[in-house]
Amino acid sequence: MQARVAVIGASGYSGVELTKLLAGHPSVELVVASSDRWVGESVAARTGVKTALRYVTVEAAVEQARQCEVVLLATPAEASHELVPALAEHTRVIDLSGAYRLKNLSQYERYYGFTHRHVELLKRAVYGLPELYRERIHGARLVANPGCYATAIQLALAPLVGKAVDAPPEGRIIVDAMSGVTGAGRKAAEEWSFAEIAGDVRAYRVLRHQHEPEIEQSLDELAGRAIDITFVPHLLPVQRGILATCHVQYLGTRDVAGLYEQAYGGEPFVALAKSAEHVKLHDVVGTNTCRIGVTVGDGGALVAIAAIDNLVKGAAGQAVQNLNLMLGLDEQAGLAGLRSFHP
Amino acid sequence: MQARVAVIGASGYSGVELTKLLAGHPSVELVVASSDRWVGESVAARTGVKTALRYVTVEAAVEQARQCEVVLLATPAEASHELVPALAEHTRVIDLSGAYRLKNLSQYERYYGFTHRHVELLKRAVYGLPELYRERIHGARLVANPGCYATAIQLALAPLVGKAVDAPPEGRIIVDAMSGVTGAGRKAAEEWSFAEIAGDVRAYRVLRHQHEPEIEQSLDELAGRAIDITFVPHLLPVQRGILATCHVQYLGTRDVAGLYEQAYGGEPFVALAKSAEHVKLHDVVGTNTCRIGVTVGDGGALVAIAAIDNLVKGAAGQAVQNLNLMLGLDEQAGLAGLRSFHP
Amino acid sequence: MQARVAVIGASGYSGVELTKLLAGHPSVELVVASSDRWVGESVAARTGVKTALRYVTVEAAVEQARQCEVVLLATPAEASHELVPALAEHTRVIDLSGAYRLKNLSQYERYYGFTHRHVELLKRAVYGLPELYRERIHGARLVANPGCYATAIQLALAPLVGKAVDAPPEGRIIVDAMSGVTGAGRKAAEEWSFAEIAGDVRAYRVLRHQHEPEIEQSLDELAGRAIDITFVPHLLPVQRGILATCHVQYLGTRDVAGLYEQAYGGEPFVALAKSAEHVKLHDVVGTNTCRIGVTVGDGGALVAIAAIDNLVKGAAGQAVQNLNLMLGLDEQAGLAGLRSFHP
Amino acid sequence: MQARVAVIGASGYSGVELTKLLAGHPSVELVVASSDRWVGESVAARTGVKTALRYVTVEAAVEQARQCEVVLLATPAEASHELVPALAEHTRVIDLSGAYRLKNLSQYERYYGFTHRHVELLKRAVYGLPELYRERIHGARLVANPGCYATAIQLALAPLVGKAVDAPPEGRIIVDAMSGVTGAGRKAAEEWSFAEIAGDVRAYRVLRHQHEPEIEQSLDELAGRAIDITFVPHLLPVQRGILATCHVQYLGTRDVAGLYEQAYGGEPFVALAKSAEHVKLHDVVGTNTCRIGVTVGDGGALVAIAAIDNLVKGAAGQAVQNLNLMLGLDEQAGLAGLRSFHP
Repeated sequence: MQARVAVIGASGYSGVELTKLLAGHPSVELVVASSDRWVGESVAARTGVKTALRYVTVEAAVEQARQCEVVLLATPAEASHELVPALAEHTRVIDLSGAYRLKNLSQYERYYGFTHRHVELLKRAVYGLPELYRERIHGARLVANPGCYATAIQLALAPLVGKAVDAPPEGRIIVDAMSGVTGAGRKAAEEWSFAEIAGDVRAYRVLRHQHEPEIEQSLDELAGRAIDITFVPHLLPVQRGILATCHVQYLGTRDVAGLYEQAYGGEPFVALAKSAEHVKLHDVVGTNTCRIGVTVGDGGALVAIAAIDNLVKGAAGQAVQNLNLMLGLDEQAGLAGLRSFHP
Repeated sequence: MQARVAVIGASGYSGVELTKLLAGHPSVELVVASSDRWVGESVAARTGVKTALRYVTVEAAVEQARQCEVVLLATPAEASHELVPALAEHTRVIDLSGAYRLKNLSQYERYYGFTHRHVELLKRAVYGLPELYRERIHGARLVANPGCYATAIQLALAPLVGKAVDAPPEGRIIVDAMSGVTGAGRKAAEEWSFAEIAGDVRAYRVLRHQHEPEIEQSLDELAGRAIDITFVPHLLPVQRGILATCHVQYLGTRDVAGLYEQAYGGEPFVALAKSAEHVKLHDVVGTNTCRIGVTVGDGGALVAIAAIDNLVKGAAGQAVQNLNLMLGLDEQAGLAGLRSFHP
Repeated sequence: MQARVAVIGASGYSGVELTKLLAGHPSVELVVASSDRWVGESVAARTGVKTALRYVTVEAAVEQARQCEVVLLATPAEASHELVPALAEHTRVIDLSGAYRLKNLSQYERYYGFTHRHVELLKRAVYGLPELYRERIHGARLVANPGCYATAIQLALAPLVGKAVDAPPEGRIIVDAMSGVTGAGRKAAEEWSFAEIAGDVRAYRVLRHQHEPEIEQSLDELAGRAIDITFVPHLLPVQRGILATCHVQYLGTRDVAGLYEQAYGGEPFVALAKSAEHVKLHDVVGTNTCRIGVTVGDGGALVAIAAIDNLVKGAAGQAVQNLNLMLGLDEQAGLAGLRSFHP
Repeated sequence: MQARVAVIGASGYSGVELTKLLAGHPSVELVVASSDRWVGESVAARTGVKTALRYVTVEAAVEQARQCEVVLLATPAEASHELVPALAEHTRVIDLSGAYRLKNLSQYERYYGFTHRHVELLKRAVYGLPELYRERIHGARLVANPGCYATAIQLALAPLVGKAVDAPPEGRIIVDAMSGVTGAGRKAAEEWSFAEIAGDVRAYRVLRHQHEPEIEQSLDELAGRAIDITFVPHLLPVQRGILATCHVQYLGTRDVAGLYEQAYGGEPFVALAKSAEHVKLHDVVGTNTCRIGVTVGDGGALVAIAAIDNLVKGAAGQAVQNLNLMLGLDEQAGLAGLRSFHP
């Protein structure tokens, strides 16, 4: 029997990706898809998947979603902030926005621009990064799906800050990450036009990106102490993919390759590369894989590079991975057959 | 002494290009630049050229433009339609829009969506394609600068329809042309975003593009009879450049290379290539050159391909060429030093 | 039980695509993959698919391929020309090259640069375009998989030249088609470098592309008379996808939309668009679908535009479709779940 | 009277750029251009500039170059290593390669793969970064033109390490920089093909790029102590441009904007942006400008981002700037009219 699932916010890039992935999932039936902008239109026409569904309004979707086994929210953070309370009593919820990722209430105003009013749900929400927190996700009812940058950066850094390391990183960890344009969602603005983006690269939200506290919260917990991250995101002239270049001052004696092997050896969605130079977007775009490579230089200079598809492992694919864990399905269900888009 | 010139509509892609070209023109001084969206801002900051000018409103610009030797309108057709009557009594005008290109009043409603009300000015307007109509432009007071597609296509076809040919083309002339995104101007819409344009190609305004009557009007005159054009424009994932592939059934006996050599041998801004395969955007982007190559197959199948930079020879550069002719300057002034952007 | 299949020439772009598709095919087991350049390397590492196979030499592959149910050749035409005789006695063969597509022996020297020496096999070879020749492919032993341009162009034109039309096209049919760079295979030459291709477009093999006789051979048969095609291919700065813009002088009285609906209404891999403007690469890249739209203008000017993914419907996907027909499997097996790469 | 100059190695991307810039330089006449691959071909046909020159062999060029006022070497480091001794006795030399940039002989084997044998010339060579070492370049006879990454990174960091700062940077300086593909020169390899580069990003030469010792040598001198740089270059899917994101732990009390203003306020080829977010490739590609922006966060985290065109300020444009200084010309001669390629 297939689990009935709903997607609310199905017309953003993550929502479309989610629709495609769920339509190909063997143990799931997509029964509701909401989109205010496409309401009444055929889901098949918009996404190419085989389904008779039409997009409904959020209001209609919420009603039906309560009868589903899982509802996935691909809505903006402010919308998710309101929708979760309306749904969490009735069904399992996976929220792809940042609305339930941070435990520290006060950070919402600074990083998301709104006052969080649902502290109880915030406490109950499980942070859905399976490679680090699989046990908590098993059977969880409310999962906050991680941010795209945050996924790549945490997976790149976790083996260096966790219990297995004999010497924790010294000083700040510096991260320069780059993302394709779909990371920002659908854009109807001149600055996102092809003429402005092609041939260009620039940094944005320098030292003030909302994924920074999410990364620090998680790494602090793994390390058992405060980890200081300096994070600069850059916008790339590509459609999909994130590459995160992370600099750590590593003074431990344990073999670095061994640390990563120990952390990720059995992980179906992490692939370890020979070195930091062997990680590129082409290997991961279209798949749920996070590829990681590490290079160590003189004097403890360590560079860890991670790459993911921002819409798959950075959003919709990871949401499906969480859904599988929540429902007790095979963690790879619906994700094993994804193939890289690179020819 | 330098001629004083004004640019109205200086913030579109053609307007910025015009500003840059005029700033580098040895015999011209740019004294007014209008832009409603950038009013009050520094022209230098927006364009990188050295000038103390700030953008003014259209109203302020019109006032000052009347005292200039030439005013260039890089405004939409409907705006130019109104501005030309307000300026043409006082000064020379070069209009980069389509508002004064067509002699047949009735075509404006169909192709431009407005009723033309200035038939006298339409009669006086000279069509500013120097390689075909240089004599008329000399000393003209009102010049309609050709459309970008129209420039490439007319230059590709003129030698085959004019008096030098012993057998005029048979049947329809088919033209498939492709343009970079700047041809459409600045765009703040999702469909023009990088995510939607990169990796894609599509046709648009199939059999109904507004440059079609402009091309036919001109070729009809050259041929002395009606020439039927089928024109399909396509949108390319590049920033600048037009490639026009033109198919003619050619049954003449005159050597085709000779026809083109005769037509363009002395032209400073036309470069003849060995064959249709030797024409590409890279050769022309950044320059005022139209590059043309012709290949003849069996049974009279003839393919003529022309390439231009849509913002230079297809707009601002050609406007400067016209300005030079109107003022009796060296036709290449301000254009001779342009270099291809291709590394 | 799964059919055992072999891929010879598995390291080209079509060969890699084939490997990925066959790995995801429910009724097929890939048991041999040859590649001289990657011999000894892991197929999984190169393609991301789950398999323990390593690439073997062509010689080793031929030996094993004879024991397979089907062998697919993704080799250059000259190599296929030699390999087919060595295999066709023993097993079913699908050749993705042009070596067995043309019935007229003499065309091989002109278009492929070699003398064809296997006229008997040429006679037996079935041209594998299922939408036009499905019956012949059923149970065939040797299938010549169509060219990428040829697939798009034939599907765009077939409804206009076949028996259902009351007035056949007049004069030449003009086709300007554009392809992404993977259509040319892996390239280690400066002219194919990113610096040379990005931002550029150009025509190539003007009036002398090898797909022209293949298209004419097929359309001649459908029409029952000689159809004259003028074909100009163009190279686009995109990785995958073909857009073919076809111009026909159509003087029939039958409703054009009806003709296409009649021809393709039941086809799983043809999607009809509202008009020629509604066809773009993004809709098809990553899928086995051919999308077609038609616009009719004044005086019989008809524009039919088709789009395909050159590596899927234009190569590997169509080969799988043919394999399914040859083995009596569901025609959509292994292809139904493909999803567009476009976000 | 115009100074006679020669370019040796005129067919690389830097050599072509140099040819174009020198052709537009008012006080210079290009009289020799060598290229082994294009020997005998017309310089005008290859570059679009107006000249009757044809490419000659290196041997022929060296002979004539000795009679010139300046010879510019756009040759690989190993070739420059040999050519400089053959020329430096006779004329002024500007070497665009790394062959004479490092003072420490032993670094050549590690970073350039050859043993340096001309220690006397190495001592005499002046490092040609005008904004930092203008006085030395004035009247110099042998100038080592800086590397492209090295130019951007030194200009971004110099104000923070020099004498004006009250607290030098603590710990390592981390630099993640990204370059367009022309930074690597002309490439005839599959990995540089459009199909492999488009849509991808990756790091390369991680912690072992040859510009690292060049940057450290220069910053050490400015700082009067050892500065430790961690440098990771990345390859971007763009043709031109470098963006360097530099992380410094800054604990000084002096206003950072003031430091940069003091350092570069009068520089014609440095433009200061409001913050690190206001620096992008589009602003500089096509020009000789280095644009720099700085953002300071909590706890002394400082991010300085610099952007240049790798072929202009990072190579040919800076060489012209050095040539101007060596010959006592206006430093901006031949460079003032360059305009950004961005529409």
